[in-house]
Amino acid sequence: MKFAAVRHGSDTRIAVVSADDQSLTLLPAAITDLHQVITADALPDLDGLETVPAGAVQLLAPLRPRRNIMCVGKNYSEHAREFARSGFEAGAVAGKDVDDYPALFSKLPSTVVGPGTAIDLHPDVTSKVDYEAELAVIIGTGGRAIPKDRAYNHIWGYTILNDVTARDLQRNHKQWFLGKSLDSFAPMGPVAVTADALDPEDLTVQCHVNGALRQDANTRDLIFDIPTLIATLSAGITLEPGDIIATGTPAGVGIGMDPPCFLAPGDTVAITISGIGTLTNTCT
Amino acid sequence: MKFAAVRHGSDTRIAVVSADDQSLTLLPAAITDLHQVITADALPDLDGLETVPAGAVQLLAPLRPRRNIMCVGKNYSEHAREFARSGFEAGAVAGKDVDDYPALFSKLPSTVVGPGTAIDLHPDVTSKVDYEAELAVIIGTGGRAIPKDRAYNHIWGYTILNDVTARDLQRNHKQWFLGKSLDSFAPMGPVAVTADALDPEDLTVQCHVNGALRQDANTRDLIFDIPTLIATLSAGITLEPGDIIATGTPAGVGIGMDPPCFLAPGDTVAITISGIGTLTNTCT
Repeated sequence: MKFAAVRHGSDTRIAVVSADDQSLTLLPAAITDLHQVITADALPDLDGLETVPAGAVQLLAPLRPRRNIMCVGKNYSEHAREFARSGFEAGAVAGKDVDDYPALFSKLPSTVVGPGTAIDLHPDVTSKVDYEAELAVIIGTGGRAIPKDRAYNHIWGYTILNDVTARDLQRNHKQWFLGKSLDSFAPMGPVAVTADALDPEDLTVQCHVNGALRQDANTRDLIFDIPTLIATLSAGITLEPGDIIATGTPAGVGIGMDPPCFLAPGDTVAITISGIGTLTNTCT
Repeated sequence: MKFAAVRHGSDTRIAVVSADDQSLTLLPAAITDLHQVITADALPDLDGLETVPAGAVQLLAPLRPRRNIMCVGKNYSEHAREFARSGFEAGAVAGKDVDDYPALFSKLPSTVVGPGTAIDLHPDVTSKVDYEAELAVIIGTGGRAIPKDRAYNHIWGYTILNDVTARDLQRNHKQWFLGKSLDSFAPMGPVAVTADALDPEDLTVQCHVNGALRQDANTRDLIFDIPTLIATLSAGITLEPGDIIATGTPAGVGIGMDPPCFLAPGDTVAITISGIGTLTNTCT
């Protein structure tokens, strides 16, 4: 099942997207937040609800996180190598591209914007903004000390996240929080897909910038797989329903190019993950 | 003015602490969260409200953050040196103790616990838990691109935060988010003090462990002062009312000792900041 958050008049509504992506069924007006669906005992009954054509409503980010998005860096081998080579990684250990432990950091909830919303390049703050196409996990049932072999039971669904990064801030401040947390730096969507509808270990992740293919990978190549990320985080952190975990980006980001290529006003970033859809945003 | 959050029967109430710290005046029951005070147009009128003796109520953390606490590392010179020497800093740059840019990271809201609440040492996850006494800033009026010379206008008040850290996780994962975000790793309180009542550039910060003085410094020695932190964060992040910024810890943490000394079950950590009070928590 695919869920979307949509602007409907002056309200935010949650909708179920039809199998052919052509129409959306609006859930009752009392449901204004996907958290209400995530924490409900059952998926909603759609009988008798209003249906609208997909083109008639504006999509929003499917979920507004209630605390920072939890993210992992350097989680595809080829990307870890391009990052180490780029000179933008503070404190990189020479000769060691793949770390023994995942690099975990966070992005503020205020980074989240919806499909079609502008990515602000913050020219007064940074001149080196880069895209990162990522599969994001949405937690359903919370918990602490979740073992790997039960991790998938705690996942409600998946969405696409663009982990936009100011590479100069990321390097200069060493800890990545600031360079990852500027306003509008987490485009999300276009929809959230329930866990039963995907095989998260076999999804293609592609990113096009202005139509040119830049990133092209498969989630089977994650260094730290989804159960490992959930087990590592939940060992000492009680995960909560609606928590979002971004699983890392594959090779092909702007700092991996020779010379490095950063986003410019008017650039369009389109991220496609099989089974979810395409998240498109233009820079301003 | 000093504010506290207190347990009152089964409710959470916000209270104003008397000048002699001996009694608390309970704000109306509709005020259950310090955010309501922070975002109000005026401080509350206390006439005719119920007053209780300070010993009669349990203090809670004065504020539950609505998104991750924003923190700075290595913000006192002597601490920066002890951290570099300790071997627990991933990617430390040899010969350079003080960074050109502040190291900014975050702690999940679920780390926050109140005065007197146990610090969970998470023995299944870490064997190297350390304390960090810090002055925390509470934002009043939000905003983006706040210049240094207007930064103090955006501060509602101050509290004490113990930035508890799992040193092994901090080192192994390189990014500090995980080692800083375990459940119960941000004791906060005992009260929040409004900005008019303190000179934040001249506060003594002391930490005792089991009665022995470990940290003893003054906020005038911050490397990146409070206006610089607010200007740096808000350059690309819209700060929000109730945001919490922890300003870094002085020398004297456990990894600075020879040999390093970590917290053990039963240890009591008491942090005193002049004009705010003493935050005491015991490890379990």
